[in-house]
Amino acid sequence: MAGQRFEVLGLGNAIVDAIAQAEDDFLAHEGLNKGGMALIDESRASSLYARMGAATIMSGGSAANTIVGLASFGVQAAFIGKVKDDEAGRAFAHDIRASGVHFDTPFAADGPSTAQCLVLVTPDGERTMNTYLGACQNLGPADVDAELVRRSSILYLEGYLWDPPAAKEAFVKAAGIAHASGNRVALTLSDSFCVDRYRDEFLDLMRTRTVDIVFANQHELKALYQTADFDTALAAFRNDTVLGVVTRSELGSMVVTRDETHSVPASPIEKLVDTTGAGDLFAAGFLAGLARDCDLKDCARLGGLAAAEVIQHYGARPQVRLADLASESGLALSR
Amino acid sequence: MAGQRFEVLGLGNAIVDAIAQAEDDFLAHEGLNKGGMALIDESRASSLYARMGAATIMSGGSAANTIVGLASFGVQAAFIGKVKDDEAGRAFAHDIRASGVHFDTPFAADGPSTAQCLVLVTPDGERTMNTYLGACQNLGPADVDAELVRRSSILYLEGYLWDPPAAKEAFVKAAGIAHASGNRVALTLSDSFCVDRYRDEFLDLMRTRTVDIVFANQHELKALYQTADFDTALAAFRNDTVLGVVTRSELGSMVVTRDETHSVPASPIEKLVDTTGAGDLFAAGFLAGLARDCDLKDCARLGGLAAAEVIQHYGARPQVRLADLASESGLALSR
Repeated sequence: MAGQRFEVLGLGNAIVDAIAQAEDDFLAHEGLNKGGMALIDESRASSLYARMGAATIMSGGSAANTIVGLASFGVQAAFIGKVKDDEAGRAFAHDIRASGVHFDTPFAADGPSTAQCLVLVTPDGERTMNTYLGACQNLGPADVDAELVRRSSILYLEGYLWDPPAAKEAFVKAAGIAHASGNRVALTLSDSFCVDRYRDEFLDLMRTRTVDIVFANQHELKALYQTADFDTALAAFRNDTVLGVVTRSELGSMVVTRDETHSVPASPIEKLVDTTGAGDLFAAGFLAGLARDCDLKDCARLGGLAAAEVIQHYGARPQVRLADLASESGLALSR
Repeated sequence: MAGQRFEVLGLGNAIVDAIAQAEDDFLAHEGLNKGGMALIDESRASSLYARMGAATIMSGGSAANTIVGLASFGVQAAFIGKVKDDEAGRAFAHDIRASGVHFDTPFAADGPSTAQCLVLVTPDGERTMNTYLGACQNLGPADVDAELVRRSSILYLEGYLWDPPAAKEAFVKAAGIAHASGNRVALTLSDSFCVDRYRDEFLDLMRTRTVDIVFANQHELKALYQTADFDTALAAFRNDTVLGVVTRSELGSMVVTRDETHSVPASPIEKLVDTTGAGDLFAAGFLAGLARDCDLKDCARLGGLAAAEVIQHYGARPQVRLADLASESGLALSR
């Protein structure tokens, strides 16, 4: 990849998902917070897996899903994330590369196994995630290839990186290099529980302009500003970030800057199957538009299109070429 | 399971599938026979995997898929098949048990790894399979729990068992015990290339009444009788088996006995996604009906219903409770 430029580089937790159907009773019995992401240790992962249903194994990870979505839109994309050199880690690397993404973060030779997320999907299509971070705990600043960051027009970071101890250093290092090279930096707040854990840090990242573009869903936004009132949260968000993008499930999305507000309806779907990856793929579509200089409303439309695709089947990676979907919807991306 | 009776016991190759999308050009370039199942060795599996797209990992195996489908209909079902005590093998065991199937075949402690099938799905929904048999080669007569066979009203065997050397002995042993106990024995011809490999053996199994019920698709049936004419093949089939079931894709299915012929249309679908498991799930529905004393046309309707479900998503295991699907379609099974 000598000298190759990338339109978007993602930095995130590299995770393999095990997706199973579950009844609401099962979540209640296991004490799981429906719709959230809980961190679990290896022994809990093993006991929960033993009790859950037949599982489909697919590569996942929030930022990784977004980056794969970008590649599916035909955008030049790269990813940094840590897996171990085990069966799951090799599958993660195979899948992301086979999706057209540049990925060359060195595998961990020892230490904890590749991260696993046990995803339980209830009959209403909502997903509840249980993540064993494993090898992600070994992601650190040394994994941030400065040259790769410099050569990537947009750096995309996930809030979940605040969980593994050394990953936030990798995050800050990458953001610093990106800005020093005149590139843009985007952040997703990831999850409302994650926002609860790192509220002050996330606000600080926004207010110090360590990040320029922030993705949040409505729950994360309310959690960020500790308010039940969406409009109050949105007003504060507008002040705190250069470009803010808020997803609101079936209500569509909103894009705010200091001076502008755009509201875009959700793309229609036939049947909600599994919400896993909805936010990740929305970000993919939005960033694809941004990378190709679409106006903000079209960016949001592209986001809605990708999110609608991914929630109509199990798993957080697209099953069709998103570039084709965009063309069919009159949103073809320019080169 | 002391004393527990089962309605259907399956004996087959225990396989984990890696499912990826592929273009027709890829199949041509790799020299693959579209729609068929090819046996490959470990090094070919590894090199083909390296070149194929991002993969979804799901438990598979023809008879195993059928048995999981039966459990989804609420039928008491058990399975015998060989995996190694490795990551994939443990996943196979987890999934089949989590699906409600009784499974206690001992894991292979050493030898080749758990069998893997690389499934390539082309844009037309057709699947092309490449199977590394691995640990299935260690399935032998010792794995056939005689008591389990005696206590299972229908024994279901896959033609693919003729591939691993010791498995056919397990097949013959199980069929003998089943008949000695007054139970019925069913066989699926599996694949037209498999029929080409073992034509004389399969005809012999039918003509000696080692098997009573035979499932075939139209291609397998024509291969069996080496004719391009479906009616010629069907007439021969009627003479050779007690109960014959032929699936014909969108043309539906036919059920033949010496004196009867029933034709049942295919269940309507919205979109064909992946034909993997179509025949396996048809057999599940048919056997569910047979186990609950439905008439032959309703058996075929139940088969069509289950096949229609499985071809509308990736993977060969049902994503909804087939018992509910049967009820909604006015085909609720009696207890």
